[in-house]
Amino acid sequence: MPAWLADCLFLSVVFRVLPSVSMALLSTLTPLFVAVLCVILVFLFKSSQKKENKAVKPEWKPTAETRPWVDEDLQDDTEIRHKDEEDGDWVESGGEEELAHVPYPASRYPVEVMVQRSQDFYSLMNQRRSVRFLSPEPVPRQVIDNVIRTAGTAPSGAHTEPWTFVVVSDPEVKHQIRLVVEEEEEVNYRQRMGDKWVSDLQRLRTNWVKQYLDVAPYLVLIFKQTYGVVAGGQKKTHYYNEISVSISCGLLLAALQNAGLVTVTTTPLNCGPQLRLLLGRPANEKLLMLLPVGYPAPDATVPDLTRKPLDDIMVHL
Amino acid sequence: MPAWLADCLFLSVVFRVLPSVSMALLSTLTPLFVAVLCVILVFLFKSSQKKENKAVKPEWKPTAETRPWVDEDLQDDTEIRHKDEEDGDWVESGGEEELAHVPYPASRYPVEVMVQRSQDFYSLMNQRRSVRFLSPEPVPRQVIDNVIRTAGTAPSGAHTEPWTFVVVSDPEVKHQIRLVVEEEEEVNYRQRMGDKWVSDLQRLRTNWVKQYLDVAPYLVLIFKQTYGVVAGGQKKTHYYNEISVSISCGLLLAALQNAGLVTVTTTPLNCGPQLRLLLGRPANEKLLMLLPVGYPAPDATVPDLTRKPLDDIMVHL
Repeated sequence: MPAWLADCLFLSVVFRVLPSVSMALLSTLTPLFVAVLCVILVFLFKSSQKKENKAVKPEWKPTAETRPWVDEDLQDDTEIRHKDEEDGDWVESGGEEELAHVPYPASRYPVEVMVQRSQDFYSLMNQRRSVRFLSPEPVPRQVIDNVIRTAGTAPSGAHTEPWTFVVVSDPEVKHQIRLVVEEEEEVNYRQRMGDKWVSDLQRLRTNWVKQYLDVAPYLVLIFKQTYGVVAGGQKKTHYYNEISVSISCGLLLAALQNAGLVTVTTTPLNCGPQLRLLLGRPANEKLLMLLPVGYPAPDATVPDLTRKPLDDIMVHL
Repeated sequence: MPAWLADCLFLSVVFRVLPSVSMALLSTLTPLFVAVLCVILVFLFKSSQKKENKAVKPEWKPTAETRPWVDEDLQDDTEIRHKDEEDGDWVESGGEEELAHVPYPASRYPVEVMVQRSQDFYSLMNQRRSVRFLSPEPVPRQVIDNVIRTAGTAPSGAHTEPWTFVVVSDPEVKHQIRLVVEEEEEVNYRQRMGDKWVSDLQRLRTNWVKQYLDVAPYLVLIFKQTYGVVAGGQKKTHYYNEISVSISCGLLLAALQNAGLVTVTTTPLNCGPQLRLLLGRPANEKLLMLLPVGYPAPDATVPDLTRKPLDDIMVHL
């Protein structure tokens, strides 16, 4: 009941009941006593209302929950579960504690081989660039499968493997994705017409119109699973799901580069919910990244960027 | 002024003023009129108080800030800059828009080579495991340098390269890090003494005591730069810095595995600020991960985990 309605009801009760019923009583009391009585009555009534309002107000202070102590690997101190997420059943055991430990089969290289391998891998990865101009040529599906398998070898908080890779090659679905992404990008674009970038119309237009979403033979949409659902419908916390999925994306980029394929790591603004529904993904999955994958177009260009030298990114102690 | 104090003051005014001043007036009025008057007075007074409270309440709804439109690559819709971070000068230009575009030097493999490469890389990465038992044997510094260089090839929001890799080989610094981490882990441990994990004392102890922090020839502490500082002391927003640094960590893990080295991806709870001060890192850097790096110990074991099959992590449309 809203506060003003309660006030009106109270007043109408005072006005109706006092004249008809209490007139006899009132005549025996002093006017002053009646006045004080009414003041106290209203005071008490309003105070009780205030308390009621306070009690109804939801408390938003996050509280630390007990979490499964599975491993110190990727423990979470940021993603504290909120009260409103506690509707379902939550399973608290992590699973790993029942596992046997087995010897780790190490493969060691001679020092000179090791140095050479580290140098070669750096050279290969250093050739990777974000490429926005893709060729429509088909790419063997087997390669894409191996790239996704590689991404799935990433470590994850409590080994939850909280990732879903949606690989889209259907031209109609790709086009639907393009429509959603470009519509949102156009809103971003039009809202920025007053900015200092307005003179760069041509360049902005290049960013707003995303041909590669139609052209690329594959679109890889990476979803993070914010929680898991185990047998019986219980929810399982996915600690550090965003960091885990991002690490997995790093392995995916390495695998693409190793296979001679290119992509551009994009995070489409505000498109997540629409694309999730379009692709039929469940509510616990949130879109983290969208990567168009293919061969580079023959005339592909990239900005003439440089990378920070080692001394700018590494500190040795 | 608190509400209860206002209420008390109002009542005391009613009690004091009414008897002494208004007695003459009251005698000429009907008791009912006085009662109604008092009710209306209190009603109006309390209503005005309520409005005042509402007006004072701070509004916490976050507002979107204008952001540099550099590129659709890794745009940010989550890390909205807060008012309290706006003290310093913020530079709004991204830098990339002045860059020339150059042809992308593509290197393409024949299809069968491509498939084989993707298979081999998956096999190599699939052998990676989080290993907690490291050998104290020295590792060539050149390999570590190449691994960090490889991590530095990751894409980043607006090419901000928001990472710092602190590589620690000094035994004394490693030991200081161990003391900080174990102290925090012991707090976690003792606070969980009442849990169902209390019976797993032996296993918990293994997690709390982190020998590898002394034993590993290198500790790599990965810091994310939450903002950058350009010439002139201006601050530069680092969009998506956590995702970018996590992707970079994925490349680092791939590079270590490629070189035959092992690590365990840890995120020490509550240790960030202490370790940042210990290592002399500036305030814009926050510890994201700590990776002990080395050869595996000869008797190293790992939990007998399996990974999800491809069909559980990939959806093809």
